[in-house]
Amino acid sequence: MNKQTPYTATARGPTDHDLRSQIVTAATEHFKLYGYEKTTVSDLAKQIGFSKAYIYKFFESKQEIGEAVCGNCLSAIEEELLTSFTDVTSASDKLRRLFKVVVEASLRLFFADRKLYDIVAASAGENWRPTLAYRDRLLQIIEGIVREGREAGEFERKTPFDESVKAIYLVLRPYSNPLLLQYSFDVIEEAPTILSGIVLRSLAP
Amino acid sequence: MNKQTPYTATARGPTDHDLRSQIVTAATEHFKLYGYEKTTVSDLAKQIGFSKAYIYKFFESKQEIGEAVCGNCLSAIEEELLTSFTDVTSASDKLRRLFKVVVEASLRLFFADRKLYDIVAASAGENWRPTLAYRDRLLQIIEGIVREGREAGEFERKTPFDESVKAIYLVLRPYSNPLLLQYSFDVIEEAPTILSGIVLRSLAP
Repeated sequence: MNKQTPYTATARGPTDHDLRSQIVTAATEHFKLYGYEKTTVSDLAKQIGFSKAYIYKFFESKQEIGEAVCGNCLSAIEEELLTSFTDVTSASDKLRRLFKVVVEASLRLFFADRKLYDIVAASAGENWRPTLAYRDRLLQIIEGIVREGREAGEFERKTPFDESVKAIYLVLRPYSNPLLLQYSFDVIEEAPTILSGIVLRSLAP
Repeated sequence: MNKQTPYTATARGPTDHDLRSQIVTAATEHFKLYGYEKTTVSDLAKQIGFSKAYIYKFFESKQEIGEAVCGNCLSAIEEELLTSFTDVTSASDKLRRLFKVVVEASLRLFFADRKLYDIVAASAGENWRPTLAYRDRLLQIIEGIVREGREAGEFERKTPFDESVKAIYLVLRPYSNPLLLQYSFDVIEEAPTILSGIVLRSLAP
């Protein structure tokens, strides 16, 4: 789907990318206050000062705007996770961080921006693209950690690689998926430590 | 709380226990058809042919009847689990059964009696007594398996016993708790095998 306008962006006017970002930023603020369900594209148009037709030049539907907002929330969690790896050298420590940061960052979203969290939960419930992309990125991160640990001799190599990765993902999933996370508050404090513990024991050479 | 009537039950009349069971059985059928939320104690009284006051002799509230129904559903899963252990001798195989049977039996309840499942889910959401009791029984079953495996030399003994047990419970929890299970259908087929696999690798001596 190519949504670029035929002209070439110049330094004088905003690019399509800028306008798109501007809409997503305004939508994020609006959703934070009023929630995704209760907001219409007309509401957003009014808030931004664009016509509804103009917004539809950039987004096919309200869901597509919701997906962009959700994508930003999940990218922020992923970025926080990758940043947390920078001072860590062992694969075992990266695994501990994985559980810790995914839980902490998701909880922060839940408590700080509940209405945005609800968009991320809706996305998970309906398998929107950002949710699937986030799952794939988590799988890639786990793959990277397992590969690193195996190469360094930190982790066993008997179990098929894909099975190891899938298993770790499944153990993490209830805490990375917002639909499940909200039912895990009574175990949330100890879960990251206990679960990264059992995963690391399973990976011991 | 003593709800026994002062007379001693004889073979000629129904005991309190019988009457209580009769109410729970009738309530179960009614909830199956109309759901717990939409049913009032008056509806139940009409259906059973008892007065509302008579029902309140046995149960303090609708929730207490819901708890009894929920308790029966969870006891059935537990019984199926214990029965599945009878032809199994190794602790490892019991662990595999644990994941398999809890998932299968919970799913069966979900698909066969969705309205009863909703009661079990409500119970989990509000921490009703049967949910807490079921969690405790699962923990006891896991304790039994870990103890057996450690004594037989099948499982490692370095990890503190309680930590091992808690970790296995946390890995199982998203599949034994109906609030979480309903969001795990896309991984449900492979989850029991993959998860009992990672748990068993973590327990290897």
